[in-house]
Amino acid sequence: MAQNSLIMEPGLVLKLEFLKILSGRENATIRDVASELGIDEFTVLNILEDLKKNYMLTYEKDKISWFHGDNPSKIKPWGWNYIYRPFIGSTMVSARYHSPWSLIVSEYQASGYGRHGKHWISNLGGLWMTAKIEVEPRTTQLLSMMIPIFICRFLREKFRLNIGIKWPNDIIYREKKLAGFLIEGELLGNRALVYIGIGINVNNDPPLETATGIKQILGKMIPRNSLLGYIAGYLTRVDDYSRDPGRVQAEYIDLLETIGRRVKAVTLSGEIIGIARSITESGELIVETTTGTYKLRSGEVLELRHLD
Amino acid sequence: MAQNSLIMEPGLVLKLEFLKILSGRENATIRDVASELGIDEFTVLNILEDLKKNYMLTYEKDKISWFHGDNPSKIKPWGWNYIYRPFIGSTMVSARYHSPWSLIVSEYQASGYGRHGKHWISNLGGLWMTAKIEVEPRTTQLLSMMIPIFICRFLREKFRLNIGIKWPNDIIYREKKLAGFLIEGELLGNRALVYIGIGINVNNDPPLETATGIKQILGKMIPRNSLLGYIAGYLTRVDDYSRDPGRVQAEYIDLLETIGRRVKAVTLSGEIIGIARSITESGELIVETTTGTYKLRSGEVLELRHLD
Repeated sequence: MAQNSLIMEPGLVLKLEFLKILSGRENATIRDVASELGIDEFTVLNILEDLKKNYMLTYEKDKISWFHGDNPSKIKPWGWNYIYRPFIGSTMVSARYHSPWSLIVSEYQASGYGRHGKHWISNLGGLWMTAKIEVEPRTTQLLSMMIPIFICRFLREKFRLNIGIKWPNDIIYREKKLAGFLIEGELLGNRALVYIGIGINVNNDPPLETATGIKQILGKMIPRNSLLGYIAGYLTRVDDYSRDPGRVQAEYIDLLETIGRRVKAVTLSGEIIGIARSITESGELIVETTTGTYKLRSGEVLELRHLD
Repeated sequence: MAQNSLIMEPGLVLKLEFLKILSGRENATIRDVASELGIDEFTVLNILEDLKKNYMLTYEKDKISWFHGDNPSKIKPWGWNYIYRPFIGSTMVSARYHSPWSLIVSEYQASGYGRHGKHWISNLGGLWMTAKIEVEPRTTQLLSMMIPIFICRFLREKFRLNIGIKWPNDIIYREKKLAGFLIEGELLGNRALVYIGIGINVNNDPPLETATGIKQILGKMIPRNSLLGYIAGYLTRVDDYSRDPGRVQAEYIDLLETIGRRVKAVTLSGEIIGIARSITESGELIVETTTGTYKLRSGEVLELRHLD
């Protein structure tokens, strides 16, 4: 979620340290946390109440537990070098220093970024990750379609959410941003190294008016690990899925809510207002305006709005 | 150091995480840190340069090392349950949840406090600790003299610093605060449980105009562990030292810079201005004013200033 300045929420560090304590053991008492954090038990209870808004935590008979399905330290996605760091600068930056097939997951990014270097707000309870993968070069052309497809597919099948894609990089629910992704990469001979950043508003509070989240839509929290495991599993098979580009494109267009809509695109060279007509094989958006037809590449569009 | 509001310095969390990485191993490369923190190598170098102002860090042949003598995770004071937590709410609060003879040391306290609950600024590079000890009840009466004595003694002997005590709880160098301490306790039958909070401006930048630090005085950093080890060792012997109260008192008075000075005391019931004449056996300050002589207990004095 775009934001210009970086302000640390007071108490955020205490919350992250609290989560670290809980992630490392089956359960902890209020006293355990008070002792380790150096805060009194009343403050521990206050922070716990706050954390319970964004994490599946239970507090019974003086034991605080973090539901395994929501605690990313409790999984180990198969085939991945899996790194869970509650606090991180940026999962995208960290991934640069890891081998392909590393998956970096964080609870909070101090300097997370999205497209065009915009600051990405990663607040507590969301799913913030970067997958570094090595794929066939032709797969890279389809990734910007495949990533939103499988996020949509999972959320539609599992929670019957009527979500769709807003070109180029947003997953939306009733015009509000539910998730976003970012793809960076480089060619290395006959292989491509690709960094896929994915941010999903799961149990976090949507950070902007124009955003929404799964918790907000369903009225309850969901365990993030199922989503994380699904994404990790899907990503190991992208080369296979890319063998049928026609099918990928068909499914993408089916989910794309931008086609047929009146849109305003803010590009590097100016604004364009017109009707989004279709998508090319390589993912460009065709926009018909009163002065002509434009073919927009994802990289040149700073912002796209649906006007109707 | 007293301050009202709590503001997290930007980048502070990154610095603390950086220190955690360094404390856990012999050395780390710039890449190691970049990878673990999720920040680029240029930013790692910038943070390192900043940290080098307050920590004894070296960077040679791409290896960053933290000098053992300055890295509190590298010592294990004998006879203590030693707890080093780079980030903590308050070492005083944490100590409540630990057994007697626990020593809690931190690099940064989010809600550190001093006398009368005033916020205590614990910035990077200082020595912030709480020792929870169990002593003979009569020892408690002498602790507020013994603690400043041994801090002064160490710094005088080791660094030839002409430092003294400003009644009741400050260690000063040329009228500027170099260290402070706080004693809390409770009687448990024939034993006393005492919490001794000690804060020393060592290699941190003095947080206020009225403060100074060892680095500032000497023009170089000193390894904190020698100071830490000295304090830990001294504290295990306070019952012994208290067998000769006359000697404790004599040494205290010798170091006390308040006697003979014109002082202003802000008390719970008003201000008193007069000449500090002497100290009683139980540590009260005798102040002679134009209207009479006052006996001030440490607990009722919010602030004391030397006026000449």
